[in-house]
Amino acid sequence: MERTGVVSSLSVIDQLADFVCELDLDRVPAAVVDEARRCVLDTVGVIIAGQKSALGKAAIEHSKQAYRDGHAHLLGTAIKLHPMGAARLNAASGHAYDFDDTSYTGIMHGSVVVLPAALAMAEHQGAGGKLLLEAFIAGVEVEYAIAEWCTTHIYYKGWWTSSVYGPLGAAAAAAKILGLDRHATAHAMAIAVSQSSGMKASFGSDAKPLGIGVAASIGTESVLLAAAGLTGPNKVFEGKNGFLSLFNDDQHATHIGLQLSDKWRLHDPGILFKSYPVCSAAQAGAELAAKLMDRHQLSSTDIVNVVCEVPPLVNISLVYHDPESIRQAQFSMQYAIGCILAYGDIKLEHLTEEVLAQPELRQQMQKVTMRVPEYLENDDTVHQRCPEGAGVTITTRSREQFGDFLDRPTGMPGNPVSTPALVDKFRDCLIHGGKSDELAKSIADELLVIDACTDIRSLFDRLAK
Amino acid sequence: MERTGVVSSLSVIDQLADFVCELDLDRVPAAVVDEARRCVLDTVGVIIAGQKSALGKAAIEHSKQAYRDGHAHLLGTAIKLHPMGAARLNAASGHAYDFDDTSYTGIMHGSVVVLPAALAMAEHQGAGGKLLLEAFIAGVEVEYAIAEWCTTHIYYKGWWTSSVYGPLGAAAAAAKILGLDRHATAHAMAIAVSQSSGMKASFGSDAKPLGIGVAASIGTESVLLAAAGLTGPNKVFEGKNGFLSLFNDDQHATHIGLQLSDKWRLHDPGILFKSYPVCSAAQAGAELAAKLMDRHQLSSTDIVNVVCEVPPLVNISLVYHDPESIRQAQFSMQYAIGCILAYGDIKLEHLTEEVLAQPELRQQMQKVTMRVPEYLENDDTVHQRCPEGAGVTITTRSREQFGDFLDRPTGMPGNPVSTPALVDKFRDCLIHGGKSDELAKSIADELLVIDACTDIRSLFDRLAK
Repeated sequence: MERTGVVSSLSVIDQLADFVCELDLDRVPAAVVDEARRCVLDTVGVIIAGQKSALGKAAIEHSKQAYRDGHAHLLGTAIKLHPMGAARLNAASGHAYDFDDTSYTGIMHGSVVVLPAALAMAEHQGAGGKLLLEAFIAGVEVEYAIAEWCTTHIYYKGWWTSSVYGPLGAAAAAAKILGLDRHATAHAMAIAVSQSSGMKASFGSDAKPLGIGVAASIGTESVLLAAAGLTGPNKVFEGKNGFLSLFNDDQHATHIGLQLSDKWRLHDPGILFKSYPVCSAAQAGAELAAKLMDRHQLSSTDIVNVVCEVPPLVNISLVYHDPESIRQAQFSMQYAIGCILAYGDIKLEHLTEEVLAQPELRQQMQKVTMRVPEYLENDDTVHQRCPEGAGVTITTRSREQFGDFLDRPTGMPGNPVSTPALVDKFRDCLIHGGKSDELAKSIADELLVIDACTDIRSLFDRLAK
Repeated sequence: MERTGVVSSLSVIDQLADFVCELDLDRVPAAVVDEARRCVLDTVGVIIAGQKSALGKAAIEHSKQAYRDGHAHLLGTAIKLHPMGAARLNAASGHAYDFDDTSYTGIMHGSVVVLPAALAMAEHQGAGGKLLLEAFIAGVEVEYAIAEWCTTHIYYKGWWTSSVYGPLGAAAAAAKILGLDRHATAHAMAIAVSQSSGMKASFGSDAKPLGIGVAASIGTESVLLAAAGLTGPNKVFEGKNGFLSLFNDDQHATHIGLQLSDKWRLHDPGILFKSYPVCSAAQAGAELAAKLMDRHQLSSTDIVNVVCEVPPLVNISLVYHDPESIRQAQFSMQYAIGCILAYGDIKLEHLTEEVLAQPELRQQMQKVTMRVPEYLENDDTVHQRCPEGAGVTITTRSREQFGDFLDRPTGMPGNPVSTPALVDKFRDCLIHGGKSDELAKSIADELLVIDACTDIRSLFDRLAK
């Protein structure tokens, strides 16, 4: 396996296959394993919540009709399908509220594609929690390593990285669970990457979460097909007419290799867990607005306007200043801060067209403006220091001004959310999903030691209640 | 609906949706309808043959396990699945031997994605043959119109156009059969295009036909999801971070609109039906070598070498000069002409690893060289006149030379294959697929008047025998 700074002579796919096949949970650093457990907890929570979204409900009905009965749960329900169907549905639902975790390596949602594929294949195979967690780590680390190698060029070019890298991570995880050898693992990932897709044009429509589902399903299927002896192009990344040239104008970090197992992206730079069910770019503005209102004892009627100053990445993501649908509202600083002003929080129950149409909310949204000031536009350190930070200045009726800047909202690497707070979010998600708080607490306890679970199927049987 | 030369103010997707919803078979020119019927015949034939390929067999087993029972046949078998499963499997099998039809509009295989989606949805709905043919025409014409608008830039850039445009055409066809209104048809196509994928790096591996299957399935699924109320991005082609910018460097034919229903690409420029089960780029070289051997009464032992001079497009496609697998051999002029020398023909039974390893074939392949001469490289008229033409010069033991140039092999627009010859190919395909010649002839008769068929399901029940 390659070492830092040494560029391997193996194909990229073969390097990834080596890493996946050799990964052993007992040799993964404890901090990485712990963060992976938190990813599992948070991702299961947002999936359960997402099943109750309009998209989740429609997609459940569709999946039941399309896929054969099997062992893999549509999480939170008693419906058990072939792993392709379960992976697809759970991944799409997990992203329905855009409440799932995010990595700044590649600027992408990794867990929501990889975990559904890993879970579906684990239930399909009757695997235990240790292998599940190992597979999850293999899947996301492979995705993040490739994303780091490809640089953020691909995201700024306009590709939707979460979908584009998803088939790779899903295939890596599912291959690990199925126990494919190095050769078949390489073919599985090569088939998966051949079908990579996803444009940021889908933001604001159901195609965005649906693409997450497609990615998880493609990865899962690729593993089953490779297990049956089918092949993919080994040089799918670096070869002619391959990924690097087509998606990324041939850009990649040439001076380093993939740094697999020398660097764990789950820990460095770490994962963002969202506090609010909107785009990660809106988290800091919303949190800071809430803090300022609390600190200065302001109510919405006191406030005349809110000016939010943001780095370029935030401005690129939050494109809807006057959102017409909930999907658009999730990419709107006006909606995010408007909710804080109107309701003091952004909860899952605020993600309805009815709430979006409420005059009280609309009135607050009109108070909010967002802009990229010069000092954030031209500062090269911004992407490291506060990639999705926000400055908020509130002006009151009495012409007082209160302002502050938040580099990193709670949940971001550098300002991590505590595990108890993450459990609270999980409980909120499960209650939104129609579960009892008692069940939520009990399942949370189990998910936080998922690698000790010997029977994944019965865990998700209990979650179906 | 737009008119020639007038660029519409509607979004691209809305223009396509108008065309799909308004298309009426009774108003389609007779020559277009006739060519569509021939596409149906030829595509069903290559699907039946492809089910017997290694890929077809593995994919059938996989599809049976993944997808629920339904009404849509895995063609030629008694297995009937949900339309997503049938569309996926039939499309992948139809491209397994690379024997399916091709359009020079966009340089792509259109029928093999669109017809499986249309057939699967027609059986799912219990639709008749008239609607099926209407949907097929809607699907391929939408694909070809977009491909023409995008120019061939996308293909030469390295994207695998057949996969990339496939979800669009499959969605258009399936939406027509389901009878979606303009609004839902637009969303179905927008969801489908959001998941477009496919790199030419997959050439030579199973990922190539598998990607054809994915395209058909994505298109079919998008229609079912749009019917359930889910949405896609309306400006997926021309919008920010959309198809044109990501896949095509923003290139498109700006001076004309889509010319839908003013121009029918099934007729102009028309469709290539292959005579040999290898890449379209190898057809002319193989046919001309056979003609020269026949004309001059040469046997392989007489021949010392064969020099094949080709246009750039052929050279780009036929990249394997010393193929190591059948998938590679299908993109090899050495294999194609080698088969002609060794066996006098290229038949489906020659597409095995055993044949590829035969010393007799290998010896003939070594006689073949291919190159792009200056007079074909720098002539702008080549892509119109002989995009996949070939010059062949045979040198004999007695140092005689026999040469000729074939602009267009039989089956190409401008040198069309007769319908009886197409029926002969269909019979060969069905016999390869294990069917009786009697059944083949009877089914061919029915497929050539598919629009008169009132019961698609029973037609494919008979084909299962």
